[in-house]
Amino acid sequence: MNVPVNRRIVLASRPNGRPTAANFHLVSGERPEPGPGEILTRTIWLSLAPYMFWRMRDEKSYAPPVGLNEMMVGGTVGQVIASNHADLKEGDLVLGQGGWQDYAVLPGASVQKIDPAWGPSSLSLNLLGGNGLTAYAGLLDIGKPKPGETVVVAAASGGVGSIVGQIARIKGARAIGIAGGAEKCAFVRDELGFDACVDHRSSSFAADLAAACPNGVDVYFENVGGPVFEAVLPLFNDFARMPVCGLISQYTATDLPAGPNQVPALMRAVLTKRLAIRGFISSDFAYMREAFFKDTLEWLRAGKLRYREDITDGLENASTALISMLDGKNFGKVLIRVSPES
Amino acid sequence: MNVPVNRRIVLASRPNGRPTAANFHLVSGERPEPGPGEILTRTIWLSLAPYMFWRMRDEKSYAPPVGLNEMMVGGTVGQVIASNHADLKEGDLVLGQGGWQDYAVLPGASVQKIDPAWGPSSLSLNLLGGNGLTAYAGLLDIGKPKPGETVVVAAASGGVGSIVGQIARIKGARAIGIAGGAEKCAFVRDELGFDACVDHRSSSFAADLAAACPNGVDVYFENVGGPVFEAVLPLFNDFARMPVCGLISQYTATDLPAGPNQVPALMRAVLTKRLAIRGFISSDFAYMREAFFKDTLEWLRAGKLRYREDITDGLENASTALISMLDGKNFGKVLIRVSPES
Repeated sequence: MNVPVNRRIVLASRPNGRPTAANFHLVSGERPEPGPGEILTRTIWLSLAPYMFWRMRDEKSYAPPVGLNEMMVGGTVGQVIASNHADLKEGDLVLGQGGWQDYAVLPGASVQKIDPAWGPSSLSLNLLGGNGLTAYAGLLDIGKPKPGETVVVAAASGGVGSIVGQIARIKGARAIGIAGGAEKCAFVRDELGFDACVDHRSSSFAADLAAACPNGVDVYFENVGGPVFEAVLPLFNDFARMPVCGLISQYTATDLPAGPNQVPALMRAVLTKRLAIRGFISSDFAYMREAFFKDTLEWLRAGKLRYREDITDGLENASTALISMLDGKNFGKVLIRVSPES
Repeated sequence: MNVPVNRRIVLASRPNGRPTAANFHLVSGERPEPGPGEILTRTIWLSLAPYMFWRMRDEKSYAPPVGLNEMMVGGTVGQVIASNHADLKEGDLVLGQGGWQDYAVLPGASVQKIDPAWGPSSLSLNLLGGNGLTAYAGLLDIGKPKPGETVVVAAASGGVGSIVGQIARIKGARAIGIAGGAEKCAFVRDELGFDACVDHRSSSFAADLAAACPNGVDVYFENVGGPVFEAVLPLFNDFARMPVCGLISQYTATDLPAGPNQVPALMRAVLTKRLAIRGFISSDFAYMREAFFKDTLEWLRAGKLRYREDITDGLENASTALISMLDGKNFGKVLIRVSPES
């Protein structure tokens, strides 16, 4: 009997600025076997997210970079096909860090078992997973929106932003989205129920945003940076809060933008408006995980949270799908369907 | 009987960048009379502080600018010489916003009576006043130093910074000062008891600061900005906090510094190190005033807080004393002795 093949996508070279297909390499090998306490899973869903651009670069971040010729990292939903762990059995769906491959051997203790009663398993990589916790913790623990306040959300049609605005609405705040193009803006407004959505590609973007925020901005959920942030900054009210969980506009830059140096202007706004700016990643908020999960499941079941998935079939297409996020071509949470759920 | 003369210093013109003596004008008039509920005070101490540079400019800040030909604002200790307020009598010392003048008429309800048992009355403009609350609230509510953590304090020999480092030490943290010149650094280290003090005028400043912070920086109390901030930024530990209460290095700038634009680098540090940056002014922390006052008085009486005053005699010298702060020529809390305490 032949050992099944396991395909993996490795980092072939580091990008010089914007990544290209040449930075990735698909390699094939034998399917691994689980050791004691481990499980073998078949990858169903691979989650793609902007943080991966940083992990491709040889720079210190909150996690070490992916090594050359090492497999690209990524959260996955997999189905257990062999288990050496007492709590997991064949057929179980698990959330874990399986990476960009067809099959993953994972320590049983490192994965979370997915209950089919929670809904589609992909939700564990989206609203019920890292995206959801990022949105929930960043908005509620750092942003702290009060009823009636204005919350501006960058990348509002994306995995995190789409959740942030909906939670803001649940908490009684006004949610103003920023997205690229009329179609995404319509989705954010009409499907997700934001109060308004502004197209950052429009030449009148800054004025449109100001018009959509007649009472100023109390919370800005930052995951973009660059010109989008620059349009929000003058609109901040005193005591505004700015959770920072991503900066996709600058992940592939090789140089800083031309001058002048705007840091003194930013710090002046911080001081005179008494702004609070705070970076975070979802793993900083493990202590909120239980409340997050309970609330989110309840909101999902009550129909208060909607979402859109941007699904690409086939592991071999993952690198193209990742790169297309840089152009804002994704529309919703980006997922690779590596194999069908059986 | 002649009505006594009241001298006032008004803003004659707005500075174009750095203020000069020509921006101020001393005018004389009749001493005012208190109306119902008001008191007349003779100014003893006038407090000078960097925020005044901003109030001279026609820019939105947390307070409106001083109007042209209007009196310069400022906190004062005055002695009551006539009172139409039931709680205040002749001879009482009061803390209030008397401004740059010999005599002030103030609503009795707007001032705070100073108890001689608290020590020298100038303390109410320093450790027991706005400087003290700024240091206490910014460090403890925003900075939140834990025992053993490293707290870096800019302008460490100045009114606010000198208190910040001493409270950090009381709370069990390491206090590293930054000051200009050997004499100030010796004072910060030997008199105030900071663990170390680094001279920002030295050509090896950035390296000296790094050497003084072998475990990185957990709290940076910002009241300077510019190159001092740039030297601290690379030293931040994950989850570092940065209370921002002043930016004296940039108060007189007419243009932003040359490029490149460092905002993306700053935001990258905010994200990957999960920094918390927050602007504040002491009046935001009225709810801490009682605890602040009780703690500070106790620390003063226990000899745990030391201070240095930089006293200039004569209202007519106030503008020169203010301008000299821009060159770091002040050494300690800057006070104008407008008249002797009787």
